[in-house]
Amino acid sequence: MTSTFAIAIVGATGSVGESLLQILEDRGFPVGDLHLLASNESAGRTLPYKGRNLRVRAVEGFDFKAVQLAFFAADQSVTLAHADAVRKAGCSLIDLSGALSAEQAPRVVPEVNAAILEGRTAPLALTSPSSVAVAVTLVLAALRDQVQVDRLVINAALAVSSRGREGVSELARQTAELLNGRSFEPRLFDRQMAFNVLAQVDEPDADGHGLLERRINQDIKALLDNASLNVAVSCHQVPVFFGDSLSVTVQASTPVEVNQVIAALDAASGIELVEAGDYPTVIGDAVGQDEIYVGRVRRGLDDPCELTLWIVSDNVRKGAALNAVQLGELLIKHYL
Amino acid sequence: MTSTFAIAIVGATGSVGESLLQILEDRGFPVGDLHLLASNESAGRTLPYKGRNLRVRAVEGFDFKAVQLAFFAADQSVTLAHADAVRKAGCSLIDLSGALSAEQAPRVVPEVNAAILEGRTAPLALTSPSSVAVAVTLVLAALRDQVQVDRLVINAALAVSSRGREGVSELARQTAELLNGRSFEPRLFDRQMAFNVLAQVDEPDADGHGLLERRINQDIKALLDNASLNVAVSCHQVPVFFGDSLSVTVQASTPVEVNQVIAALDAASGIELVEAGDYPTVIGDAVGQDEIYVGRVRRGLDDPCELTLWIVSDNVRKGAALNAVQLGELLIKHYL
Repeated sequence: MTSTFAIAIVGATGSVGESLLQILEDRGFPVGDLHLLASNESAGRTLPYKGRNLRVRAVEGFDFKAVQLAFFAADQSVTLAHADAVRKAGCSLIDLSGALSAEQAPRVVPEVNAAILEGRTAPLALTSPSSVAVAVTLVLAALRDQVQVDRLVINAALAVSSRGREGVSELARQTAELLNGRSFEPRLFDRQMAFNVLAQVDEPDADGHGLLERRINQDIKALLDNASLNVAVSCHQVPVFFGDSLSVTVQASTPVEVNQVIAALDAASGIELVEAGDYPTVIGDAVGQDEIYVGRVRRGLDDPCELTLWIVSDNVRKGAALNAVQLGELLIKHYL
Repeated sequence: MTSTFAIAIVGATGSVGESLLQILEDRGFPVGDLHLLASNESAGRTLPYKGRNLRVRAVEGFDFKAVQLAFFAADQSVTLAHADAVRKAGCSLIDLSGALSAEQAPRVVPEVNAAILEGRTAPLALTSPSSVAVAVTLVLAALRDQVQVDRLVINAALAVSSRGREGVSELARQTAELLNGRSFEPRLFDRQMAFNVLAQVDEPDADGHGLLERRINQDIKALLDNASLNVAVSCHQVPVFFGDSLSVTVQASTPVEVNQVIAALDAASGIELVEAGDYPTVIGDAVGQDEIYVGRVRRGLDDPCELTLWIVSDNVRKGAALNAVQLGELLIKHYL
């Protein structure tokens, strides 16, 4: 066992990549050699790490034999293009794009299903699930002894940062134009995003489901190890800069005891429960925090087996970069 | 039968009241004497109607014997304070506040359940339901022959205009302050509304449900005449000026045939179906329109009996003022 690990971050210049770098530093991850990789266009830029400026190199042509662990925080196409080379190089991989199948790279949230890795050996490939699935399964895992889930209906109001930095700047631009009474041509989004709610966040398939909606559905069933669960997912884009706002309605197999649910959420690590009457929001609560915030714990008006929860989380931190770093910590502790 | 009717509008100076006045004019409602009424503070203002400026008077002390039909578009307390006097004056009443019980004033959407009025005689008191219930039941009534509904999960993203003109001006103010890098104290809303999603739109009760959530639940069960329906409702406030954006997941008793659902919605009057792949939003589609817009018609990923719909509507028009005027048209045609 070495005391430090050679690491690559692919997609280092994106918002999740930068957040990864920051969290590795903040948590004292035992980083040895550090390779920041990106597309050819972004190569040559520098990023700060522990007071130094590190140069970003092109992922094309990089030899993954040089590292023991690679984080992939770019588009799915980038993961698909390099996953084989990573494996052949004997390097472990943590993918944040969701490009790989469950067989190629199991989805893991350490607090939820780390046990599925027992008995496996490096090199390992893991998927850090979609931010919505991370938040929802963290909460449901904390309620394992209180709520037997039969069905989930998830409505996810996603911030424009889910579209990267361009999403953030485009919402700011549109808002400023409108407040100044000027017209504009929308960019990135297919119509006006400012002061509007978009019904979908990516291109729907022939059945009308978006890629992210399908991914969240599959992530949740895999993470909860329950293939027979019914999971309905609707993702909407809201004029918010950062953070996921989730409304989750659970159908349980037995009547929900709200007091027990509240006690279990209160005791869970990584979850911040906001007291009844009040509620958390992305601004002021979730954004910039590692915790998932939960509020509005309610039993159904017509069905005692129904439970509704409001969940907000930082889609870039726990939803993506933090969970990936925690997976890295799991790997170096037990498998590398 | 007279050819015109003496009308009162209580709450005439509010946004719904003004919209009522406009729609009465637009639709050629046979208005005879017209009495615009409001609180003492708003009395004395004038409002335009058919090119004239009409003076608003105080509702306090108004004798409802002078009119045959009164619209109540103010707070619930105003309806409660005057409903008895209206009834004793032999005047019919259409309440938009939801203050009266189902026995006192049945909830009616003409396209959905006008039949329940058969055999009744004037004076009548009717409730124009909450805007979310109007939109959802209009769509489900159009699907009566296609979908037998067992359970509904409704997530309603409500514009700030649901809080009246003050909501609109406060969102504009907060947004401008933020874009100019200035801090501010929130007014009307309990925290920052700009670029944020609030988990509730009014004060929750001891069980965590908001007044509007309960009202929507009761409205829908009454309108669909199905007391055993399970209706879960979550209302959120989004940084949007006008219009309701609704995500509705239906659990049906038999598998959903999406093609039949699409054909039925396409044929329904008052509903504008947006083709698959595209979707409607409040901006550009619903706001300022009488129609309810529907899109993203999808069957469940895990359950063929599940149907998810995206519905947007103008919360002030069909959601409130237009439906109330249509109720007025129903009354003058058959009952007054």
